[in-house]
Amino acid sequence: MTPVYFDNAATTKIRDKVIDAMVTVMHNNYGNASSTHSLGRSSKALIEYSRKVIAKYFNVSASEIVFTSGGTEADNLVLRSAVRDMGVTRIITSKIEHHAVLHAVAQLKTEYGIVVDYVDLDENGQVDYMHLEGLLQSTHKTLVSLMHVNNEIGNILDIKRVAFLCKAHKALFHSDTVQSIGHYELDLKALPIDFLAASAHKFHGPKGVGFAFVRKGSGLKPLIFGGEQERGYRAGTESIHNIIGLEKALTQAYEHLAEERLYIKDLKQYFIEKLKLELPNSVFNGLSGDMEKSTYTLVNVGLPISPEKSAMFLFQLDLKNIACSKGSACQSGSIQASHVLSEVVGVNDFQKTSLRFSFSIYNTKEEVDYVIGVLKDLI
Amino acid sequence: MTPVYFDNAATTKIRDKVIDAMVTVMHNNYGNASSTHSLGRSSKALIEYSRKVIAKYFNVSASEIVFTSGGTEADNLVLRSAVRDMGVTRIITSKIEHHAVLHAVAQLKTEYGIVVDYVDLDENGQVDYMHLEGLLQSTHKTLVSLMHVNNEIGNILDIKRVAFLCKAHKALFHSDTVQSIGHYELDLKALPIDFLAASAHKFHGPKGVGFAFVRKGSGLKPLIFGGEQERGYRAGTESIHNIIGLEKALTQAYEHLAEERLYIKDLKQYFIEKLKLELPNSVFNGLSGDMEKSTYTLVNVGLPISPEKSAMFLFQLDLKNIACSKGSACQSGSIQASHVLSEVVGVNDFQKTSLRFSFSIYNTKEEVDYVIGVLKDLI
Repeated sequence: MTPVYFDNAATTKIRDKVIDAMVTVMHNNYGNASSTHSLGRSSKALIEYSRKVIAKYFNVSASEIVFTSGGTEADNLVLRSAVRDMGVTRIITSKIEHHAVLHAVAQLKTEYGIVVDYVDLDENGQVDYMHLEGLLQSTHKTLVSLMHVNNEIGNILDIKRVAFLCKAHKALFHSDTVQSIGHYELDLKALPIDFLAASAHKFHGPKGVGFAFVRKGSGLKPLIFGGEQERGYRAGTESIHNIIGLEKALTQAYEHLAEERLYIKDLKQYFIEKLKLELPNSVFNGLSGDMEKSTYTLVNVGLPISPEKSAMFLFQLDLKNIACSKGSACQSGSIQASHVLSEVVGVNDFQKTSLRFSFSIYNTKEEVDYVIGVLKDLI
Repeated sequence: MTPVYFDNAATTKIRDKVIDAMVTVMHNNYGNASSTHSLGRSSKALIEYSRKVIAKYFNVSASEIVFTSGGTEADNLVLRSAVRDMGVTRIITSKIEHHAVLHAVAQLKTEYGIVVDYVDLDENGQVDYMHLEGLLQSTHKTLVSLMHVNNEIGNILDIKRVAFLCKAHKALFHSDTVQSIGHYELDLKALPIDFLAASAHKFHGPKGVGFAFVRKGSGLKPLIFGGEQERGYRAGTESIHNIIGLEKALTQAYEHLAEERLYIKDLKQYFIEKLKLELPNSVFNGLSGDMEKSTYTLVNVGLPISPEKSAMFLFQLDLKNIACSKGSACQSGSIQASHVLSEVVGVNDFQKTSLRFSFSIYNTKEEVDYVIGVLKDLI
């Protein structure tokens, strides 16, 4: 049987239309976008077209979109340059950020001796906005880095509130929007956000490409030095097929957002109801059981099983052709418990028996039935 | 008419077989290589297979190959970590390196105050090995960064000599091999080289992927921090289709190296003879006219035209459907003269009237005839 792929927060299947566009580019547009001849110019035109299309969805100017090799690079680009080039001496973040932010920040602390503060979270991993406001009373030049949608528990940040808090206190604001771009709309004319990071493979685009939104006049300097690509913000020959794939995937995502969101939301709702019915002792971690306060794309479930049994659980699901995960794929190989669940589930036993199920338009209610049937059988 | 593409040093057309392999991967292997389920493991297996295949061509172990988003990132990764993590306080390089090295080194000088020395070059841009040996008499912890094949004038470094010189003087040796990998073989068991940088799109692979060779035990740390991908050397979800494309392109390049080298070498020889016959007042810059001391893939020609006429020359060639360049594509947009030619051609007028023609297996002698005919007509 085809696998039931409930791991869409780790990565998504590329849309066929996206692949087709990439293949056309690979066959026809092999010119280096920096070359001045017509083959080069046509590659350049494709990239600049993509940049404009993307910028429009966020209501920003094309020059504020910097293509990168993915979300992690975009996070690193922004964070490092903020410290090195923009005078940032302190970063406020949270302990449930993605490692792309947490490890980059830790490295900057080691290299530059910056101050790092972690905003308080409640028992569901929700940011304590009052505490954040308190932390912002500081003479340090501060950057706040808080993700829009948490990749493990799906909590949605009140990004508008944080953006205006940062603005009021003259702090820079970076948001890792890897889990939200393509799934949520952001109007960056209305929101005073300085930097964003996005990754194409989270919204049915190719792996190995993403972008940073970099507010005009930020003073950002490159992470990777060399040629003058990306208006001097990011050296290296452009991956034209990947950039086209990113643009096509984003266009598809936003053109079909209303109906696809409805479809996926309905699946999640169905999953929650069915799970409550069949395994009433399960718990929903973070805010993932709340349809309004968490993303419609995932649930994180603590299952009523013993920690001993849970060790083999993912393996057993895999044998039943079910793909889900214990948390971020970037740390799947690790034997350590999820750093996110450690913060939000605390000392209770569910930390080790929790699974993330994440959905896309390619999933069905029949798959939900199947997965919950298998869970029930195994427990 | 199909364009005559004589700009293969800027980038190459992807082989159809490579595209086919990438498409298969994009359709079937969408699992995140860090995920533990079977879809993830099959992606991981593809990446590790590619790594082993690539490692074998250089006689190194798979763990010494670190996939990156390209040659520029690989150069930056190595140079930055050498200074930050390996105690390097001095870099010896040359003024005709690619900007991926020169600008990265300049940035490191600004950030860390390292000493930067430039090895002397003769009038053809050939490294003065005696001067290099002299520079290596130093108490600084030194890294030497010299490219194997120059991207503008094609000069081939005596990489073995430099490697053993560095070894004798306990200096680290990094070589930007972006123009040589896929065109020349390198046995890294026999050569004491510490680091290499390679880029797939220079040997008929996809743009946006490359690798660094990092000698075991080097102490290298990441440029991009986050997840544990690439054994902790490079965070970010792996671009599986691009990595497979890189592997397939390298395999094709080395499996057909003997016959393809012969074919391209013959084209270059033909171009040189024909040009000497038709435009006897042309000059060959650097060592590019020497079939033994320069790469078989390019020539750099100073044309007997006035600098005024030369301004429009590329444009006129483009109208005649001929793609070539004035130097590195990464600086094509720039109005400045090539930094490489400034060093090797010096004050003579050819600096502004020089063009690089670079060849691949997809070129023909008929194309050479056509191009030289057009050159003659225009001059």
